[in-house]
Amino acid sequence: MIIIGEKINGTIPGVKRAIQERDEEYIVNLAVKQAEAGADYIDICAGTMPEVEIDTLIWLMEIVQEAVEKPLCIDSPNPKAIEAVFDKAKAPGIINSVSGEEGKCEVIFPLVQGTEWDVIALTCDNSGIPADVESRVEITKQIMDKAQKYSIDPARIHIDPLVMALATDNSTFVKFLNTMQQIKKLYPSVKVTSGLSNISFGMPLRKAVNQSFLTIALYAGMDSAIIDPCNKGMMAALYATEALLGLDKFCRNYNKAYRKGITH
Amino acid sequence: MIIIGEKINGTIPGVKRAIQERDEEYIVNLAVKQAEAGADYIDICAGTMPEVEIDTLIWLMEIVQEAVEKPLCIDSPNPKAIEAVFDKAKAPGIINSVSGEEGKCEVIFPLVQGTEWDVIALTCDNSGIPADVESRVEITKQIMDKAQKYSIDPARIHIDPLVMALATDNSTFVKFLNTMQQIKKLYPSVKVTSGLSNISFGMPLRKAVNQSFLTIALYAGMDSAIIDPCNKGMMAALYATEALLGLDKFCRNYNKAYRKGITH
Repeated sequence: MIIIGEKINGTIPGVKRAIQERDEEYIVNLAVKQAEAGADYIDICAGTMPEVEIDTLIWLMEIVQEAVEKPLCIDSPNPKAIEAVFDKAKAPGIINSVSGEEGKCEVIFPLVQGTEWDVIALTCDNSGIPADVESRVEITKQIMDKAQKYSIDPARIHIDPLVMALATDNSTFVKFLNTMQQIKKLYPSVKVTSGLSNISFGMPLRKAVNQSFLTIALYAGMDSAIIDPCNKGMMAALYATEALLGLDKFCRNYNKAYRKGITH
Repeated sequence: MIIIGEKINGTIPGVKRAIQERDEEYIVNLAVKQAEAGADYIDICAGTMPEVEIDTLIWLMEIVQEAVEKPLCIDSPNPKAIEAVFDKAKAPGIINSVSGEEGKCEVIFPLVQGTEWDVIALTCDNSGIPADVESRVEITKQIMDKAQKYSIDPARIHIDPLVMALATDNSTFVKFLNTMQQIKKLYPSVKVTSGLSNISFGMPLRKAVNQSFLTIALYAGMDSAIIDPCNKGMMAALYATEALLGLDKFCRNYNKAYRKGITH
């Protein structure tokens, strides 16, 4: 599974402080730790101050790219901010994110056309997050139609079916699985992803729910996830699941992750 | 999921000692703790001394039935021992186990005919445990044919497809899932079970493998498992999975198990 490391996010208090104080070491440490724990991409999100978002993203990009070899996942709700910092990336990464909301795909898709960048696409639109599977699939179709216009291969799109809090919507995970199944039927090479920790919001022992989510979703075909690769329980669930599914010859990756202290 | 508590087993050193010293309190404690943690059945296995097996089983049955209201799972490789102690059971439970080995179904099935007892059936025969899915399914068919002769409803049979150690057979879990799928197609009401901890034999951090096994197997339709209900990580995985699958309205069981300290 493709791991997108979520820790450098300006909405997290420690990162917010580091951004405000330009504490480079703090960011370097988060980047290195995530890379060492197995992140394939390092997500960078500036946080909630749009007036300084572009400056912050550029600062984060420079530090992270200096610190680790991993490609970036540039994370902003504002496609114009992504467009403004795009040429500071040294290698193709992931754009996080577009959606069915007007003006998102229209800015991002021309940007990544003809490149090797991937794009995360959320199944929401101007009306918000739909409650049912069918509307999520419908939004996906619209996004994929737009991607096709810019000759963006479906394999470069990571659809995020947007899980809600299980405590308030008991069927959110079943909807996630059904949406994934329908999307993969329509677009066999498309990727499905999830920023999954939201699922356990408001529940005790959140790690149990997050780990079981990851395990089942992986078994059911999820391709990538936006997670904390320094979370040992999550990584243990990930490596154990890949070994169980016969995807880890001689359990080599499982044993290696254990020896490196990634899973315990 | 139906939980068969595995802790009262004479092959475990502490239980072996308690049996030898007739330490009643030790056994009572294991029975009560498993019942409190949510065991639906209490497995009792005398251990490895055939010459005293029947006396030991009767002693265990009396103590456990006195201590808790839960039905027993009478566990012996020797159908004659099960036959000898069968009438000491106060309520219908589970026989653990029959298999394709000659002389097992032939003793046990007449015993449980016309009762409400369930039976665990292992997919092995006189030649041992087959390496492939097809032979496991074939053994299942033979067992189900015999069950039919004694009018034993398929819903009363728990087929155990016998997982091996993942470290030496990387495809053992995939075979387990495929066997389960094929068996359920042939006998929609049959139950599938697993004494699953064997899967992680020889691996570090066994709990990660066992928990992911339980999570995926439950999602894929496993009906019961022979586990330690006092293992908080396993129980957390179980309750989280049932909540994720929409089987736990308002996450009530998940929250209750947390409050009772069963999952953490």
